Amino acid sequence: MIGRLNHVAIAVPDLEAAVLIYRDTLGARVSAPQDLPEHGVTTVFVELPNTKIELLAPLGDGSPIAAFLQRVPEGGVHHLCFEVNDIAAAAARLTATGARILGDGRPRIGAHGKPVLFLHPKDFVGTLVELEEA
Amino acid sequence: MIGRLNHVAIAVPDLEAAVLIYRDTLGARVSAPQDLPEHGVTTVFVELPNTKIELLAPLGDGSPIAAFLQRVPEGGVHHLCFEVNDIAAAAARLTATGARILGDGRPRIGAHGKPVLFLHPKDFVGTLVELEEA
Repeated sequence: MIGRLNHVAIAVPDLEAAVLIYRDTLGARVSAPQDLPEHGVTTVFVELPNTKIELLAPLGDGSPIAAFLQRVPEGGVHHLCFEVNDIAAAAARLTATGARILGDGRPRIGAHGKPVLFLHPKDFVGTLVELEEA
Repeated sequence: MIGRLNHVAIAVPDLEAAVLIYRDTLGARVSAPQDLPEHGVTTVFVELPNTKIELLAPLGDGSPIAAFLQRVPEGGVHHLCFEVNDIAAAAARLTATGARILGDGRPRIGAHGKPVLFLHPKDFVGTLVELEEA
Protein backbone atom coordinates (compact mmCIF):
# COMPACT_ATOMS: atom_id res chain seq x y z
CA MET A 1 0.00 0.00 0.00
CA ILE A 2 2.51 2.66 1.00
CA GLY A 3 4.74 3.98 -1.76
CA ARG A 4 7.46 6.63 -1.69
CA LEU A 5 8.56 8.38 1.48
CA ASN A 6 7.28 11.83 0.53
CA HIS A 7 9.01 13.64 3.38
CA VAL A 8 10.37 13.49 6.91
CA ALA A 9 8.98 16.38 8.96
CA ILE A 10 11.18 17.88 11.67
CA ALA A 11 9.64 20.32 14.14
CA VAL A 12 12.08 23.11 14.97
CA PRO A 13 11.91 25.93 17.52
CA ASP A 14 13.95 28.33 15.36
CA LEU A 15 13.50 28.04 11.60
CA GLU A 16 16.39 30.34 10.67
CA ALA A 17 18.81 28.33 12.81
CA ALA A 18 17.56 25.08 11.27
CA VAL A 19 17.99 26.49 7.76
CA LEU A 20 21.58 27.45 8.53
CA ILE A 21 22.29 23.92 9.74
CA TYR A 22 20.81 22.19 6.70
CA ARG A 23 22.01 24.72 4.11
CA ASP A 24 25.41 25.78 5.41
CA THR A 25 26.60 23.00 7.70
CA LEU A 26 25.13 20.05 5.77
CA GLY A 27 25.27 21.74 2.36
CA ALA A 28 21.76 20.88 1.19
CA ARG A 29 19.44 22.84 -1.11
CA VAL A 30 16.77 24.58 0.95
CA SER A 31 13.56 26.31 -0.21
CA ALA A 32 12.32 29.73 0.87
CA PRO A 33 10.11 29.69 3.99
CA GLN A 34 6.38 29.49 3.39
CA ASP A 35 3.81 30.61 5.96
CA LEU A 36 0.75 28.38 6.11
CA PRO A 37 -1.42 30.28 8.63
CA GLU A 38 -4.41 27.97 8.14
CA HIS A 39 -2.17 25.05 9.23
CA GLY A 40 -0.36 26.95 11.99
CA VAL A 41 3.14 26.35 10.62
CA THR A 42 5.89 27.92 8.56
CA THR A 43 7.64 25.35 6.37
CA VAL A 44 10.98 25.06 4.65
CA PHE A 45 11.84 22.09 2.44
CA VAL A 46 15.30 20.58 2.35
CA GLU A 47 15.44 19.13 -1.14
CA LEU A 48 17.36 15.86 -1.35
CA PRO A 49 17.82 13.83 -4.56
CA ASN A 50 15.29 11.19 -3.51
CA THR A 51 12.99 12.82 -0.95
CA LYS A 52 12.53 15.93 1.20
CA ILE A 53 12.99 17.01 4.78
CA GLU A 54 10.23 19.41 5.85
CA LEU A 55 11.30 21.82 8.58
CA LEU A 56 8.22 22.94 10.52
CA ALA A 57 8.11 25.93 12.85
CA PRO A 58 5.02 27.03 14.77
CA LEU A 59 3.04 29.97 13.37
CA GLY A 60 0.44 31.84 15.40
CA ASP A 61 -1.57 30.60 18.37
CA GLY A 62 -2.61 26.98 18.66
CA SER A 63 -0.04 25.62 16.23
CA PRO A 64 -0.41 21.83 15.86
CA ILE A 65 3.30 21.45 16.63
CA ALA A 66 3.33 23.64 19.77
CA ALA A 67 2.69 20.72 22.13
CA PHE A 68 5.46 18.67 20.49
CA LEU A 69 7.96 21.52 20.96
CA GLN A 70 6.93 21.95 24.59
CA ARG A 71 7.75 18.28 25.10
CA VAL A 72 10.90 18.36 22.92
CA PRO A 73 12.14 21.98 23.04
CA GLU A 74 15.25 21.37 20.91
CA GLY A 75 13.13 19.97 18.08
CA GLY A 76 13.03 16.53 16.49
CA VAL A 77 11.36 14.27 13.95
CA HIS A 78 7.63 15.04 14.08
CA HIS A 79 6.20 12.68 11.44
CA LEU A 80 6.93 10.55 8.37
CA CYS A 81 4.79 11.04 5.26
CA PHE A 82 4.25 8.10 2.89
CA GLU A 83 2.49 8.34 -0.45
CA VAL A 84 -0.53 6.19 -1.31
CA ASN A 85 -2.40 5.94 -4.61
CA ASP A 86 -5.90 6.04 -3.12
CA ILE A 87 -6.36 7.70 0.25
CA ALA A 88 -9.97 6.54 0.68
CA ALA A 89 -8.96 2.92 0.08
CA ALA A 90 -6.05 3.35 2.51
CA ALA A 91 -8.38 4.76 5.17
CA ALA A 92 -10.81 1.85 4.74
CA ARG A 93 -8.01 -0.74 4.94
CA LEU A 94 -6.49 0.86 8.01
CA THR A 95 -9.79 1.21 9.83
CA ALA A 96 -10.52 -2.46 9.12
CA THR A 97 -7.27 -3.45 10.88
CA GLY A 98 -8.19 -1.36 13.94
CA ALA A 99 -5.57 1.33 13.29
CA ARG A 100 -6.67 4.74 14.53
CA ILE A 101 -6.91 7.66 12.12
CA LEU A 102 -6.58 11.00 13.91
CA GLY A 103 -9.42 13.51 13.82
CA ASP A 104 -12.76 12.37 12.43
CA GLY A 105 -11.18 9.44 10.58
CA ARG A 106 -11.62 10.96 7.12
CA PRO A 107 -8.97 12.30 4.77
CA ARG A 108 -8.68 16.08 4.68
CA ILE A 109 -6.72 18.50 2.52
CA GLY A 110 -3.23 18.79 3.93
CA ALA A 111 -0.70 21.60 4.03
CA HIS A 112 0.38 20.92 0.45
CA GLY A 113 -3.07 20.82 -1.14
CA LYS A 114 -3.42 17.03 -1.33
CA PRO A 115 -5.69 14.66 0.61
CA VAL A 116 -3.95 13.37 3.72
CA LEU A 117 -4.63 11.51 6.90
CA PHE A 118 -2.61 11.06 10.08
CA LEU A 119 -2.31 7.76 11.96
CA HIS A 120 -2.02 7.36 15.71
CA PRO A 121 1.63 6.99 16.81
CA LYS A 122 0.70 4.30 19.33
CA ASP A 123 -0.45 2.05 16.48
CA PHE A 124 2.75 2.65 14.43
CA VAL A 125 5.66 1.90 16.80
CA GLY A 126 5.75 5.41 18.25
CA THR A 127 5.86 7.23 14.91
CA LEU A 128 3.27 9.75 13.76
CA VAL A 129 2.54 8.62 10.18
CA GLU A 130 0.98 10.83 7.51
CA LEU A 131 -0.41 9.29 4.34
CA GLU A 132 -0.73 11.56 1.32
CA GLU A 133 -2.52 10.76 -1.93
CA ALA A 134 0.20 11.00 -4.58
CA MET B 1 27.27 18.03 0.74
CA ILE B 2 24.52 15.63 1.79
CA GLY B 3 22.95 13.55 -0.95
CA ARG B 4 20.22 10.93 -0.78
CA LEU B 5 18.36 10.05 2.39
CA ASN B 6 19.72 6.52 2.71
CA HIS B 7 17.34 5.47 5.48
CA VAL B 8 15.22 6.52 8.43
CA ALA B 9 16.01 4.32 11.44
CA ILE B 10 13.21 3.53 13.87
CA ALA B 11 14.07 1.89 17.18
CA VAL B 12 11.42 -0.66 18.14
CA PRO B 13 10.92 -2.67 21.33
CA ASP B 14 9.34 -5.65 19.48
CA LEU B 15 10.64 -6.35 15.99
CA GLU B 16 7.95 -8.89 15.07
CA ALA B 17 5.19 -6.47 15.99
CA ALA B 18 6.85 -3.70 13.98
CA VAL B 19 7.20 -6.00 10.95
CA LEU B 20 3.49 -6.85 11.12
CA ILE B 21 2.63 -3.14 11.16
CA TYR B 22 4.82 -2.23 8.18
CA ARG B 23 4.16 -5.39 6.16
CA ASP B 24 0.52 -6.18 6.88
CA THR B 25 -1.06 -2.92 8.02
CA LEU B 26 0.89 -0.55 5.74
CA GLY B 27 1.48 -3.10 2.97
CA ALA B 28 5.19 -2.48 2.45
CA ARG B 29 7.91 -4.90 1.36
CA VAL B 30 9.98 -5.95 4.34
CA SER B 31 13.32 -7.82 4.45
CA ALA B 32 14.18 -10.81 6.65
CA PRO B 33 15.62 -9.85 10.05
CA GLN B 34 19.39 -9.72 10.30
CA ASP B 35 21.28 -10.02 13.58
CA LEU B 36 24.30 -7.73 13.84
CA PRO B 37 25.78 -8.82 17.18
CA GLU B 38 28.88 -6.64 16.79
CA HIS B 39 26.54 -3.62 16.53
CA GLY B 40 24.07 -4.76 19.22
CA VAL B 41 21.01 -4.66 16.97
CA THR B 42 18.73 -6.80 14.84
CA THR B 43 17.62 -4.97 11.71
CA VAL B 44 14.76 -5.25 9.24
CA PHE B 45 14.53 -3.01 6.19
CA VAL B 46 11.23 -1.67 4.92
CA GLU B 47 11.94 -1.21 1.23
CA LEU B 48 10.21 1.82 -0.27
CA PRO B 49 10.54 2.92 -3.92
CA ASN B 50 12.87 5.83 -3.05
CA THR B 51 14.47 4.98 0.31
CA LYS B 52 14.33 2.57 3.24
CA ILE B 53 13.04 2.48 6.78
CA GLU B 54 15.40 0.54 9.05
CA LEU B 55 13.67 -1.08 12.01
CA LEU B 56 16.19 -1.56 14.82
CA ALA B 57 15.67 -3.82 17.82
CA PRO B 58 18.21 -4.26 20.62
CA LEU B 59 20.36 -7.41 20.54
CA GLY B 60 22.38 -8.58 23.53
CA ASP B 61 23.69 -6.54 26.43
CA GLY B 62 24.75 -2.94 26.00
CA SER B 63 22.86 -2.35 22.77
CA PRO B 64 23.41 1.21 21.51
CA ILE B 65 19.63 1.65 21.27
CA ALA B 66 18.82 0.38 24.78
CA ALA B 67 19.00 3.85 26.38
CA PHE B 68 16.74 5.29 23.66
CA LEU B 69 14.12 2.61 24.29
CA GLN B 70 14.27 3.19 28.03
CA ARG B 71 13.46 6.84 27.35
CA VAL B 72 10.90 6.08 24.61
CA PRO B 73 9.56 2.59 25.39
CA GLU B 74 7.02 2.50 22.53
CA GLY B 75 9.79 3.16 19.97
CA GLY B 76 10.34 6.05 17.61
CA VAL B 77 12.63 7.60 15.02
CA HIS B 78 16.21 7.03 16.19
CA HIS B 79 18.26 8.64 13.40
CA LEU B 80 18.32 9.86 9.81
CA CYS B 81 21.09 8.62 7.50
CA PHE B 82 22.24 10.83 4.62
CA GLU B 83 24.71 9.78 1.95
CA VAL B 84 27.91 11.72 1.26
CA ASN B 85 30.48 11.14 -1.46
CA ASP B 86 33.56 11.54 0.74
CA ILE B 87 33.20 10.87 4.45
CA ALA B 88 36.64 12.21 5.35
CA ALA B 89 35.91 15.50 3.60
CA ALA B 90 32.52 15.64 5.34
CA ALA B 91 34.12 15.06 8.74
CA ALA B 92 36.67 17.83 8.10
CA ARG B 93 33.99 20.28 6.95
CA LEU B 94 31.76 19.52 9.94
CA THR B 95 34.56 19.78 12.47
CA ALA B 96 35.53 23.15 10.99
CA THR B 97 32.00 24.46 11.65
CA GLY B 98 32.14 23.29 15.26
CA ALA B 99 29.65 20.44 14.78
CA ARG B 100 30.35 17.52 17.09
CA ILE B 101 31.04 14.08 15.67
CA LEU B 102 30.21 11.33 18.16
CA GLY B 103 32.91 8.96 19.42
CA ASP B 104 36.51 9.82 18.54
CA GLY B 105 35.47 12.07 15.67
CA ARG B 106 36.65 9.71 12.95
CA PRO B 107 34.57 7.70 10.49
CA ARG B 108 34.18 4.02 11.35
CA ILE B 109 32.69 1.07 9.52
CA GLY B 110 28.97 1.06 10.13
CA ALA B 111 26.38 -1.70 10.39
CA HIS B 112 26.16 -2.04 6.60
CA GLY B 113 29.89 -2.26 5.89
CA LYS B 114 30.40 1.36 4.79
CA PRO B 115 32.25 4.23 6.47
CA VAL B 116 29.88 6.23 8.66
CA LEU B 117 29.87 8.89 11.31
CA PHE B 118 27.21 10.12 13.70
CA LEU B 119 26.59 13.79 14.52
CA HIS B 120 25.47 15.16 17.87
CA PRO B 121 21.68 15.70 17.97
CA LYS B 122 22.08 18.98 19.83
CA ASP B 123 23.92 20.43 16.82
CA PHE B 124 21.25 19.21 14.34
CA VAL B 125 17.91 20.47 15.69
CA GLY B 126 17.38 17.47 17.96
CA THR B 127 17.97 14.83 15.30
CA LEU B 128 20.68 12.17 15.48
CA VAL B 129 22.23 12.33 11.99
CA GLU B 130 24.29 9.53 10.42
CA LEU B 131 26.42 10.23 7.35
CA GLU B 132 27.34 7.23 5.20
CA GLU B 133 29.84 7.21 2.34
CA ALA B 134 27.79 6.19 -0.69
